[in-house]
Amino acid sequence: MNAEIIAVGTELLLGDILNTNAQYLASRLAELGFTVHYQSVVGDNAERLAGVLQTAKARARLLVVCGGLGPTEDDLTKQTAARVFRDTLVEDEEELGRIRAHFAALEKPMTPNNARQALVPAHGGKFTNDNGTAPGILLRDGDNLAILLPGPPSELRPMFETKVLPYLRTLSDSVLVSRWLHVIGIPESQLDLQLADWLNAANPTTALYAKTGEVHIRITAKAEDEEAAAASAGATAQQLCGILGETVYSTDSSDLETTVVRLLKAAGAHTALAESCTGGLLAQRITAVSGASEVFHCGIVSYSEEIKQKLLGVRAETVAAHTVYSAPVAAQMARGAAALAGAEYGVGITGIAGPTGGLPGIPVGTVFIAVHSPQGTFVRHALWTNRSREDIRWRAATAALEMLRRAVLGLSQPDAAPFLFEPDASV
Amino acid sequence: MNAEIIAVGTELLLGDILNTNAQYLASRLAELGFTVHYQSVVGDNAERLAGVLQTAKARARLLVVCGGLGPTEDDLTKQTAARVFRDTLVEDEEELGRIRAHFAALEKPMTPNNARQALVPAHGGKFTNDNGTAPGILLRDGDNLAILLPGPPSELRPMFETKVLPYLRTLSDSVLVSRWLHVIGIPESQLDLQLADWLNAANPTTALYAKTGEVHIRITAKAEDEEAAAASAGATAQQLCGILGETVYSTDSSDLETTVVRLLKAAGAHTALAESCTGGLLAQRITAVSGASEVFHCGIVSYSEEIKQKLLGVRAETVAAHTVYSAPVAAQMARGAAALAGAEYGVGITGIAGPTGGLPGIPVGTVFIAVHSPQGTFVRHALWTNRSREDIRWRAATAALEMLRRAVLGLSQPDAAPFLFEPDASV
Repeated sequence: MNAEIIAVGTELLLGDILNTNAQYLASRLAELGFTVHYQSVVGDNAERLAGVLQTAKARARLLVVCGGLGPTEDDLTKQTAARVFRDTLVEDEEELGRIRAHFAALEKPMTPNNARQALVPAHGGKFTNDNGTAPGILLRDGDNLAILLPGPPSELRPMFETKVLPYLRTLSDSVLVSRWLHVIGIPESQLDLQLADWLNAANPTTALYAKTGEVHIRITAKAEDEEAAAASAGATAQQLCGILGETVYSTDSSDLETTVVRLLKAAGAHTALAESCTGGLLAQRITAVSGASEVFHCGIVSYSEEIKQKLLGVRAETVAAHTVYSAPVAAQMARGAAALAGAEYGVGITGIAGPTGGLPGIPVGTVFIAVHSPQGTFVRHALWTNRSREDIRWRAATAALEMLRRAVLGLSQPDAAPFLFEPDASV
Repeated sequence: MNAEIIAVGTELLLGDILNTNAQYLASRLAELGFTVHYQSVVGDNAERLAGVLQTAKARARLLVVCGGLGPTEDDLTKQTAARVFRDTLVEDEEELGRIRAHFAALEKPMTPNNARQALVPAHGGKFTNDNGTAPGILLRDGDNLAILLPGPPSELRPMFETKVLPYLRTLSDSVLVSRWLHVIGIPESQLDLQLADWLNAANPTTALYAKTGEVHIRITAKAEDEEAAAASAGATAQQLCGILGETVYSTDSSDLETTVVRLLKAAGAHTALAESCTGGLLAQRITAVSGASEVFHCGIVSYSEEIKQKLLGVRAETVAAHTVYSAPVAAQMARGAAALAGAEYGVGITGIAGPTGGLPGIPVGTVFIAVHSPQGTFVRHALWTNRSREDIRWRAATAALEMLRRAVLGLSQPDAAPFLFEPDASV
């Protein structure tokens, strides 16, 4: 079935924001087996929006439209699309109640324009919004369908995943099942050669997605029913897992932090963190996992030497001898964090995220990442040149998670060297 | 003059890559004074691409097209656009020489398909590519213009900046200048009513962009020259600042964390952080600002009661009397963090980010945010219901930054209550 994606918003036309919704929807629709030949962006203008909707309706059976469902005068998508799909809008008691409750909880007055969000089509349907006040809308005109979604990705994505996706599955004549393998430690260019046979195959299709510091592999099988598609995708996933071994850190779309939290939980172990250049990013990623409190009790963001010494036991002599950007300081931070929290594992990260602050022989992008574990302490010396501050920080946190994963699983540390503390524990 | 942006590439339709070129071009064209009413994405298919080009050519005088200029069979943009703009392609000796030299420098053989990149329109023009082998193309058909650009941003952007922009300046009859106001503490729906006169005005135009926990206001003025446009946008910005007062936290597009870091730096002050439910997100946002180390030395992510007591001086009696999700615990955390780091300001955040873990009378979304300052301690009791874990954490960190901003500026704390420690410092 053909589908089109239409994003509504003058801010997109002005280049004020990036159209991430179009990419997300495109990728989801492709996985569901829809063929998308066109994407459009149009502003908050009823006439031009109606024109775009008419053109798209003549070309594709399903339109997925995002943006312009809010409470303001600018938000015209619902009214315009209802006209094009020959439906009328009526006030929905349930939605009105939800909006009222929302403002009551905020203890803020509900301005009258907010009631516009409670309008739903008389003959179409709605998708409840669990993360905001504007419901999603379903319009039908003969064989033509339109699904209208709120613009904020924090509302659009969960609504799509939990409400729209199950509905769309019922429309597709073949079933596509995707499996994802998340891989760390092999660059995309190497995977491209190593997996050439699978990347060129027609069914299942296999595709690589390079992410910062890792690669995701999508395997999508098409079949008449879900069981057959799942079996086919699963068989390919198993083949690739056999080839890629321990570099596959998850086979269920879990991210690296979720994987590490699960592994620690399964081991009944805890980790503590001492972060310098990542500034809390690693703690934030770990605690973004619901239930992280079972395995994580304490993170220290030590942005000064004094705090490193006072809380983590980093020694002034070590700093004087090696600078604060060094393997011994990272190792002391990791051990110090573990000791402070009484945790089996400890992470220490110190380095220069830039854009300025490089020292002679220690360029911006230098990061030392240490993991202390019952099996010993390992330090990785990374150098990410020509990267932004944000990118360096993300890569450093990812590298720490990967070392932690390997430590908990008892795997080797291919990118890190063992660190031996002196018997007097000074360095 | 009207312009349209057309991105060509099946990888965009499949959602494999994000359409960053469209945002870049939209923002550049808006700055040059072009009006863009539509953006499109179409795949590497001659018939559909020709259709999109025809439609756009009938609506807009300038088309900016990106992608599909490469050497492979899939790259159809130049051939298709030349047909739509009634021009023919001829081999350009200079371009052929450049491509040959490129392969000679790489010491790689030049495959015959690479010669396709040396084709340029007989009557149009070209823009030399200093970062790749495919030149940009200019097509003219009467008053209609098309500019074709290579898809890789590393080629498109420098070509646009150095070759296309100077050419487009000669076409534009007006200049646009935008100013941004970032506002916190007033919801979008209220601003929509309060600023209705400006939101409905034609020049400068004013628009609202709701972000999580804040609103951004864009003011764009059009005039004959840059000076006049800047003066007009500046005058409106000043009017709105007069109305919105201290809720405007930045007038130069700086985000809230950058604003807070600057204010602390100007005051010669420091802040320390104690985070529970935000798990390091606040530390991460502050340290994402380059130079944050001047104002921030220490953040504690205290995910257990033991760490709260050991490092931050939270009292077991307080936890027993009020639970850990309470104003007194937040206040003790803020004061404890400041004391630990010897900082003038301290932040304490404790709450339940969910999705599970609510207690009787303390639902998910409850967060206590405390700021300790030389003027006293303030605690905000927030309740964000029906929000995701990620959203609650972001809002809590934003609320803390806003309280910190107000504390450093000596403003009132409209959403928070003063907290008085007992003389014995126990609660």
